[in-house]
Order: sequence, then structure tokens, then C-alpha cells
Amino acid sequence: MRNLILAAAAALLAAAPVQANELAATAAALRDRALSDTTAWTVTESLTSEVGARPQGSPAMDRARDWGVAKLRELGFENVRVETYEAPSWLRGPESAEVTSPYPHKLAILGLGRSTPTPRGGLEAEIAVFRTLDEMLAQPEGALKGKIAVVTERMRRTQDITGYATAVRARSIGGVEAAKRGAVGYLVRSVSTDDTRLPHTGGARFSGIPMAALSPPDAELLERLAARGAPVRVKLELASTFREKAPAYNVVGEIRGREAPDEVVVIGGHLDSWDVGTGAVDDAAGIAITTAAAKLIADLPQRPRRTIRVVMWGAEEQGGSGEAYAQANAAEVPRMILASESDLGAGEIWRVKLPAGALGHPAMRAFAQVLAPLSVAVSPEPAQSGGVDVGPLQTLGAPVAELSQDASRYFDLHHSDDDTLDKIDPKALAQNVAVWAALVYAVADSDVDFRALAGGAR
Amino acid sequence: MRNLILAAAAALLAAAPVQANELAATAAALRDRALSDTTAWTVTESLTSEVGARPQGSPAMDRARDWGVAKLRELGFENVRVETYEAPSWLRGPESAEVTSPYPHKLAILGLGRSTPTPRGGLEAEIAVFRTLDEMLAQPEGALKGKIAVVTERMRRTQDITGYATAVRARSIGGVEAAKRGAVGYLVRSVSTDDTRLPHTGGARFSGIPMAALSPPDAELLERLAARGAPVRVKLELASTFREKAPAYNVVGEIRGREAPDEVVVIGGHLDSWDVGTGAVDDAAGIAITTAAAKLIADLPQRPRRTIRVVMWGAEEQGGSGEAYAQANAAEVPRMILASESDLGAGEIWRVKLPAGALGHPAMRAFAQVLAPLSVAVSPEPAQSGGVDVGPLQTLGAPVAELSQDASRYFDLHHSDDDTLDKIDPKALAQNVAVWAALVYAVADSDVDFRALAGGAR
Repeated sequence: MRNLILAAAAALLAAAPVQANELAATAAALRDRALSDTTAWTVTESLTSEVGARPQGSPAMDRARDWGVAKLRELGFENVRVETYEAPSWLRGPESAEVTSPYPHKLAILGLGRSTPTPRGGLEAEIAVFRTLDEMLAQPEGALKGKIAVVTERMRRTQDITGYATAVRARSIGGVEAAKRGAVGYLVRSVSTDDTRLPHTGGARFSGIPMAALSPPDAELLERLAARGAPVRVKLELASTFREKAPAYNVVGEIRGREAPDEVVVIGGHLDSWDVGTGAVDDAAGIAITTAAAKLIADLPQRPRRTIRVVMWGAEEQGGSGEAYAQANAAEVPRMILASESDLGAGEIWRVKLPAGALGHPAMRAFAQVLAPLSVAVSPEPAQSGGVDVGPLQTLGAPVAELSQDASRYFDLHHSDDDTLDKIDPKALAQNVAVWAALVYAVADSDVDFRALAGGAR
Repeated sequence: MRNLILAAAAALLAAAPVQANELAATAAALRDRALSDTTAWTVTESLTSEVGARPQGSPAMDRARDWGVAKLRELGFENVRVETYEAPSWLRGPESAEVTSPYPHKLAILGLGRSTPTPRGGLEAEIAVFRTLDEMLAQPEGALKGKIAVVTERMRRTQDITGYATAVRARSIGGVEAAKRGAVGYLVRSVSTDDTRLPHTGGARFSGIPMAALSPPDAELLERLAARGAPVRVKLELASTFREKAPAYNVVGEIRGREAPDEVVVIGGHLDSWDVGTGAVDDAAGIAITTAAAKLIADLPQRPRRTIRVVMWGAEEQGGSGEAYAQANAAEVPRMILASESDLGAGEIWRVKLPAGALGHPAMRAFAQVLAPLSVAVSPEPAQSGGVDVGPLQTLGAPVAELSQDASRYFDLHHSDDDTLDKIDPKALAQNVAVWAALVYAVADSDVDFRALAGGAR
């Protein structure tokens, strides 16, 4: 009798661990398979070679959409579809910049997204150079009247997004602030950690004046010329077209769940890119990592309990794809178990942040153990930010996770002509897939409910 | 009596060492002063900021010539003069390249010096990709008929010139060899150790067909597209002008010797550059290093015995400045004690090669000792090559030295838009000046005769 009671108790105690052990074993097998799987690499190679740069609203974006549909079908995804909406499209025309006095120099620049074109024939003015954005913000109204404002603030290299988040203000709001003070043009040192003579573009708030990024060496040249004391004049010629509403596309594919197909794990990256480089680290890699992770899970002997959905968001760079996706799928958000995006390059994942209270569930503790051999930490802090495309789902109540990539080298490449396939380390790419596959599997094949766990954690 | 004899003998024995000791002490003081001297940096900054890119035959080269004269005068050089001659001038016009099928891609290219322009409207053809130059050379006559030949051979990073000397053949003779086999155009992977999307230009033999360098990522893209098997077509549009004889200038200044002013130590770098970047490491640095070394010696309490002459050769990149200099100064070559140029960037000097038998003279042994704290070796091998501009003096009998710079990073920058001031480490630049100042002083303030020593060494 005593034995029977003990046996029953033991069985009861073991039930969850046994399930978790099975899940951990499969997640570990996925992890190990991912480390030698080449799907993410071939997907990245395919998108960068067969489409290349693909800015929102361009013919290349149409090709990227078709590529996405074909690639998901080829890999065996189900319910492959295109969700169409409208999003802004700023497209670059011919651009040039030069110092005209005191010494002639060509400048390496790239217009910023939402820049106003210059008049035909260009715009020439004296420059006013500021070493930091704050230095320019300290100028009174009218202080920059008729001038081209130049901010040369440097970006710090950091493992996480901190360096970028700090430096990017000079790009995003510098033009607006320069215009307020009377400037007729705005130049900003590229928000970049590299020193190559390649400018890095990016979005900026509409300012009504022409705005462009200088390559780091050109920003330093302007600093040196300005330091000589004599007026420095720059001629700027920027052409572009802007449509507030251009056709845009989110491409979606699924691995349908075997037990609870209506419960969905949403993962993905963004399909669009800037018009320079080939959009390899930003964000073919994110598309490839999440697609490869889902594909590895699909190749298991049995489907996971829940549905895994890969979304290739179509208008991240210029904005709108996350909002459009959340709006079109709002009714389904209560059944979205977890949402997460990969959009910080192709560096190794070094940290994972889960929803609050997540480790209260054995499947998530099992996941944490599976990460240990990769030296990836599950942070004690809960995930805060869903990112640009997942954020709108988060706002509607979807739990989110952050798989933090090492961004140390990302901003050497980001938004520049240097964003090409050769910059990606296939081993680091595969490490990403390993972490994603383990997490997505642990969530999709368990009954973890982050909303309930978050309640318990409070 | 015995004491007197001993004293006399001691004096006799000591005579040379005492002289050498004094020379060593002064050379060591120059070395140490150079390490904290900023002249080379300010000269480099000045040329790159106030002139920038300065290809032979361009208006910028005229400005560089005027800059050289003014800078040498400002630094107190004597007999500052311009030696005028004629040299080839190839100047770039607008250029573009793109893959037209199977997938459209813009390509980052730079026409090679002496490239033939394409017809207006460009030239479009199928490409034939070869991973090495030898692979293309193995093709029979006519095998490339109507095609654009592409050679994607990679360059190895080496401390000395080996990597470049091996890889540069694909750039210099590839076009001629492609044309022989019927090609209508030639593209070569940039002779570069970097992976940025900046092409590296450079001279090539006249081939009668358009020739351009691809950035490394673009070369790899063409490899990947070709590997898919379907024909790859490229459209190339290159404009340029070429003059076989354009005005060219060698700018010269001297520190006249106090005892034997007709005996001359000739040092320098080249004033011209390619039209991309600002010619910082190639070769503002060489000009600056040798000028700063001479200036440090001029600032000693007394002038050295012999004359130190700094030559800023004006047409190294496209050829002719060394020949013109040797021809114009041929009569003086017998009184040229040593000639040496600095033209491998701004990396630290790690080795010095002297004329054969040089260490037979105490001044040269003293020099070797002065180098020891810098961990710079005097090679047991004699100097072989005077370099592009000193070579013609060597041919006429001038002894030469090689001050070998660490070229490990040089070919990341060389002939590209990335050749800018920010890539120069001021400490490494100063180390160069230290070695040059010690050597030039040891030669100019002694009676070393390398021709005699070379005879003794045989």
C-alpha cells in the first residue's frame, strides 16, 4: 500500500519533468542540427543574389515579394500568402555633394529617407559644423539661417543597441531641428561604427530641407576644414521621389500545429531593405534565421502542438509593416502565444529575454538548459520591446521575446553599400537558428501561457 | 714613454668609435625627438585637407605642386624648385556598371588607368568568370570572343609587398590577355585585402578594351551568379580621357650640407595620387615622413656634412616621374650618396635594408644600434629595389636603401576612396620619421661611401 502511494506520488511528481525532459531532448537535438544546417545561409544567399537591394515601393520590392512566396512554398510552408497594404516610399535619385571652397573636395554622401530634394542644379551654402547634436540644439532660432548644418557626433560601438539608440537621434531629428533654426540643408555623420568612406543612410523625420549622411572620413574632413576658420561652402544636389502611400506586402507562411493550430507563435524578419548594399545583415539574415528555424521544426517526425508562423514584414525601413500586420490580424492576437522578430544582423545571440514569469513553466526552464552549451544567458529581466514590426502586436497584448544578437559589428554595415553577403559568418548565422529553433519549439510544443505566467509573476 | 705610446695607440683606436659615438648620440636624440614630433602628421593633414585627390594631369595636381613649394619653403628648405617634364595622364569620367540578367544589380566599380572608354551608351555582354588569372590565361585564342572577362583572384595579406606583387598581375596584364582572347571588356576583383564595397583602381597595360576593378563583394556576387549556370550579362559604361604627354612636376627642396654640399642624400615620396580618396597613405604619408625627417635634422645646432634633398615625385601612379628625375639629374648621380623613397603607406617600419657592405662603416653600425630600441632590424640582405621613383637613379648607379613599412593594412586602403587621413596612426607615422631621421643623419653627417663598401663586400 505504502509502495503504491509512493509510486503514485512519484508518477505525479515526474509527469511534468518527463514531459519537459522530452521537450528538452528534442529542443537540444534541434539546436545541434541547426548548428550544422545551411538553410539560413542558402536563404540569405538566395535573397541577396537573386533580388539584392529592395526598398519599399520599388520594382525590386515586388521581386522580393515574389521571391518570399516562392521560397516559403519551396521549403514546405503552408498557407503561404501575401498581405497587401499601403506604406510610405521614398526612393533615391541621383545625388552628389562637394566642398566648393576653400578647397574643392568631392564628398561621399547618401540622402536620408524623407529628405526633400534640392532644387535642380543643387544648393550651395556655407556650413556650420557641430561636434554633437546637443551643440546644435543649443543654437537659438535663426542662428543657422541660410546655412547647411553639419552634425558630426560619433557613435560608440556596443554589444547591444545602446550605441545606435544614442547616436541615431542626430540622424532622425537633426534635420527637423536644423530647419527650425533656419538651416537650408542638413548633413550628419553616418550613424556607423566603421571608418570606411561609405555613407550610411536611414530614415529621418520630414524636415522640409535636404538631408544627407556623410561618410565618417568626410565628416572628419569638414571638421578639419571648419577648424581652419575660413568659411567652408558645400554644394549639395539630391533628387528623390516620395509617395505617402505605395503598395506594400507582408509575406506569410505557416507550419500548422497538430493539436492547437489556432494558437500561433509569430516570428520573422523584414523583407525590405535600403537601396544600398544588398540587405544581407539588414535583414535577409533575420528572414533566413527565422525561416530556417521553422523549417527545422517542420522536419521533425511530428508537428508541434501549435502553429508557427513566419512573417516577412515588407516595410520596416520606411515604416508601416508592423502596424499593418497588427491591424489586419488584430482579432487573432489573443491566440498569439508569442511574437518575436530577428532584426539586428547576423551576429551570435548572446542573451534571450522572455516574457515576465516565463521561467515558471518547465518548458521554459528546459529551454534555458538547452541554451547553456551555447553560452547564451536567459536574462532575469523580462523582454521589454518587441521591435519595430512586433511592437504593434505587443501593444495589442501579444507576449514578446527578445533574442539579443551581438551588434558589435552590425553598425559597420547597416544601411550602407557594405551590407553584403560576404560580411555574414555562416557559423554565427547557424548559432542564431539554433537558439530560435529551440525557443520556438519549446513554446510551440508545450502549453506555456505567458499571459498567465505574467499574472503569476506580478 | 710607454704611457705615451699607449695613449697614442688608444687615441688612434678610439678615433673612429668616438666619432661614431657622437653620431650615434645625435641619431638617437633625433630618433627620440621624432617619436613625439608632429610635423609628419601636420604635413599629411595639410596635403589631404588642402588638396585632396591629385591625379597627374589634373588641376588638383597643379594645386599639389604649389602646395609642395609653399610647404617646403615654410619649413625652411633651401633651393626649393619645380622640375617640369611630361608624363601620361589618364583621367576618369562618369562610370557605371550593372548586372542586367538574370537579376538586376548595380555593381561598384572603378575604371583602371589606361582603360579604353566604352562607346557612349555603354557596352553589354555576357561575362566569363575565372577564379584566377592563370585560369583565364589557359583559355585559347578566341575563347572569350564577345564576352566581358572577369578575374576574381584574391589577394593574400602579407607584411611586405609579396601579396600585392602576386595579385597585381591580374590587374596590370589581365586586360591585355583578355583582349588577346577576344574579350570586349575586362573586370578584375580589386587588388585589395579589405572586404568593403569600395573598388580599388590602379594602372593597367593598355589593352584597347574597357577595364575596371570590382569591389570585393561585387566580385563575389558575380562568382555566385555565374555558379548558377545561366548566362550572366553585364552592362558597362566607362568614360575617360588620356593624354600620352601632360605637364608633370617634381618638387624639390634641400637642406644644404655644411662641408660637402655637393654630396647628396636623396629621399622623398610621391606627390600625385589616384583620383579617389585623398591620397593619404599613398603617398602624402611618404612625402610627410621624409620631409619631417629632413626638417628634424635641419633643426640641429649644426647642419650635417652633406646635403639632404627631399623630392616630391609628381607622376608615380601613372609613371614617369622617377625616369624624368633621373634623366634631368643624371650628371649628379655619381655624387648621390644614397637614394631612398617612402611609398608603402604609413605603417611602422619593421626592417631596413642597406646597400651591400654598409655595416662595414662605423656610422652604419651606429645607425643599427640606434634602431634597436625600436625593434627595427637591419636586414643581413642588401637592398635590392629602389622603388618606382628611385629605381631609375639606381639604374644609373645610385646606392639605395629600403625602409620596409608594415604593409599588412596598406592594401585595405590603397587606390580606393578609403585612402583618407583618419586611417593613419600618428604614432606609426612618427616611428617612420624616427627611422628615416636616424638613417639620413647617419649617412649625411658621416663619410660613408656605399660604392666603396659594396666593392669591399664583393
